[in-house]
Amino acid sequence: MAVYTEVSDEALDVFLENYDLGRVNMFKGIAGGVENTNYLLGTEKNSYILTLYEKRVAEADLPFFIGLMDHLATRGFSCPSPIRNRNGQALGMLQGRPAALVSFLQGREVVHPTPDQCAMTGRTMAQLHRAGEGFDIKRVNALAPSGWPTLVTSAADRANSVETNLAELIVDELEFAQANWPDDIPSGVIHADMFKDNVFFLDGELSGVIDFYFACNDFLAYDLAIAINAWCFGDNLEFLPEHCSALVQGYQNIRPLTDGEADCMPTLLRGAALRFLLTRLNDWLDVPEGAFVIPHDPKAFSARLRQFQSITRAQLGLA
Amino acid sequence: MAVYTEVSDEALDVFLENYDLGRVNMFKGIAGGVENTNYLLGTEKNSYILTLYEKRVAEADLPFFIGLMDHLATRGFSCPSPIRNRNGQALGMLQGRPAALVSFLQGREVVHPTPDQCAMTGRTMAQLHRAGEGFDIKRVNALAPSGWPTLVTSAADRANSVETNLAELIVDELEFAQANWPDDIPSGVIHADMFKDNVFFLDGELSGVIDFYFACNDFLAYDLAIAINAWCFGDNLEFLPEHCSALVQGYQNIRPLTDGEADCMPTLLRGAALRFLLTRLNDWLDVPEGAFVIPHDPKAFSARLRQFQSITRAQLGLA
Repeated sequence: MAVYTEVSDEALDVFLENYDLGRVNMFKGIAGGVENTNYLLGTEKNSYILTLYEKRVAEADLPFFIGLMDHLATRGFSCPSPIRNRNGQALGMLQGRPAALVSFLQGREVVHPTPDQCAMTGRTMAQLHRAGEGFDIKRVNALAPSGWPTLVTSAADRANSVETNLAELIVDELEFAQANWPDDIPSGVIHADMFKDNVFFLDGELSGVIDFYFACNDFLAYDLAIAINAWCFGDNLEFLPEHCSALVQGYQNIRPLTDGEADCMPTLLRGAALRFLLTRLNDWLDVPEGAFVIPHDPKAFSARLRQFQSITRAQLGLA
Repeated sequence: MAVYTEVSDEALDVFLENYDLGRVNMFKGIAGGVENTNYLLGTEKNSYILTLYEKRVAEADLPFFIGLMDHLATRGFSCPSPIRNRNGQALGMLQGRPAALVSFLQGREVVHPTPDQCAMTGRTMAQLHRAGEGFDIKRVNALAPSGWPTLVTSAADRANSVETNLAELIVDELEFAQANWPDDIPSGVIHADMFKDNVFFLDGELSGVIDFYFACNDFLAYDLAIAINAWCFGDNLEFLPEHCSALVQGYQNIRPLTDGEADCMPTLLRGAALRFLLTRLNDWLDVPEGAFVIPHDPKAFSARLRQFQSITRAQLGLA
C-alpha cells in the first residue's frame, strides 16, 4: 500500500520517448502492492501499468517475470503483456529503478467469490500451467520448503506473542513438511500467489490474472494448494468445501490431477498455509521500516493450517 | 499516500446501483492524498474519481465542497464535476463513510513549471475567483490567522529541534501577521491549496484544477500568495522572480489586483508561508498514527518565509 518511488513528469517523458504510446492524459500512483511501485498510465492510445521494481525484487529475476508474461500472453493467456520500446526492450530504467510497461487488464477482484468463480479460477490456473510449458527461463522457488527453516528460526522465539502455541505449530509443521513433501509429482511454471486480488473478473467472466512476481518453477499441484488457501475460506476462516470442490473440478476440467498429486494434496495444503503463515509472521514481527504497509494477520493462516491437519481427499472434492 | 478505507466489490456495486454509469472495468485505489480515500473508477461510459471522506474532513463542510465544484463546473471552470445519482444526490454513504463521485480530469501535474505554466496558473486562479462569485454557501477559513495561535502554541516548545531559531521565527511572524493583516481587501471563494499537484496540464495547456477540500471564503489575494509560495521556488528553495512575475501577470490579465492588494502582498506571502510552515511543523512533530504518510519537511516553508521578510512589490512584478 504505497508508492515507493515518485516519478517526475520530466523523467516519465524521457522514459516514454522510446515508446510509441501517444499523449499522456493520466498518470496515477496505485495504492496496494507491497513489492513494487505501480502507476496507471493512460495515453490517447490505451491504458498501461508502469511498474518500478523496488529492492525487494531481485533484478536478476526480472527477465524471468517479464519473459513469462510475454510467453503466456503470446499463447493467449490473459495477463499483462509487456510493451516493448522502439529498441525491442521491455525493461528500462526510470528514476534509477528497473521499470517495465505492461498492458492494462480490465476487470476487478472479487472479495467473496462464488463457487462458480472458484471454478473459473481453477480452470484458468490449469490453462496457465499449460501455457507455461515451453518457457525456457527457470526460477527456483525461494519460498519452497528449503526456504522455510530460516523463516521458522527468525520467528519462532516471538511467535507465541502472536498466538498461543504458534511456535510449536510452525516447528512441527516444518518437520511434517520436510518428512512428507513429495518429490515426484509434475512440475512446471506456477503463479505461486494466485490470491483473490490477483484475479480479475468482468461481466461475470474471469478477465485475467496479474502479478507474476512470485512465479517460479515448482509442483503444479502446489499452485492449486495455494489457491485453495486463498479462495476457499469464509470471513470467519471456515473452510468452504463447495468452493474447494468447484476450484479443484475447474482445474481438473483442463488438467486432471494425477493420483499422486491428489494423494499429497493435504500435505501441499499444509505446506502452502505454512509458507504464507511464515512470511506474514515475519512481516508482522518486523514491519519493514518505511514500508507504509499494514501487515497481514498471520493468524488467518494458522487457522487454515490447523484445519488442513485433518482434511481428507474427499473433503477436497478428490474422492 | 494511503488508501484509508477499503471498498469491497459488493459495497461498490450497491453504491453504484443508484447511478447510471454502466459496467465497471477498473477500480483502483489512488496513492497520494492525505485527507481522503480516492479511487479511480472506470466504467464503459467514462472515468470517475470516487472519494470517501475520512475523519479529517468535517461532514458539515461537504455541501460546501461539493456545491462549489458543481457551481464552478457549471460556470465553465475546469474542475471535477460532482455526479448525481438517480435521486439527484451528489453525496452518498459507502463503507460507513460519506462518499462522492466526481468526473475524472485528464492531465497531470508538473514538477518544474515554466514561467508560461505559472502564467496559466495565475490566469486560471483569477478565473476561479470570478467563477466563484454568486456561490451562496460560506465556509470560514479554519487556517486563517485566527487559527494560527493554536498551531504556534502546540509546536513552539519543540520547534527548535527541527531548525535553529524556528520557535522565535513562528512567534515573531504570528505577531507580525496579527499586527499587519489586512481587513479591507476583496474577499471571495478561494482554493487555498493551489499547489502544483492540484493543477493539471495536458498538451501544453492547463487542463484543470482539483482538490477543493481547503476551499473557503477569504481574501482573493491570499490565494495568489499561496500560489506564489507553491509555484515560484526552485529545488534549492530559491525564489524565482520570473516565475512570480508570470504568475502575477497571468492573474492580473483576468483580474487586476487593487492597489491595496498589491501593497499587502508581502504580508500575505509571509502569512501564507507561515500557515504551511505551521501545519507541516505540527504534522512533522506529531505524525498521525496509522496515517501512512511521509510528512512534508516544514523547513521548505521557513526558508520561503525568511526570503519573504525582505521582499518588495517590485520583486513580485507589482511595480
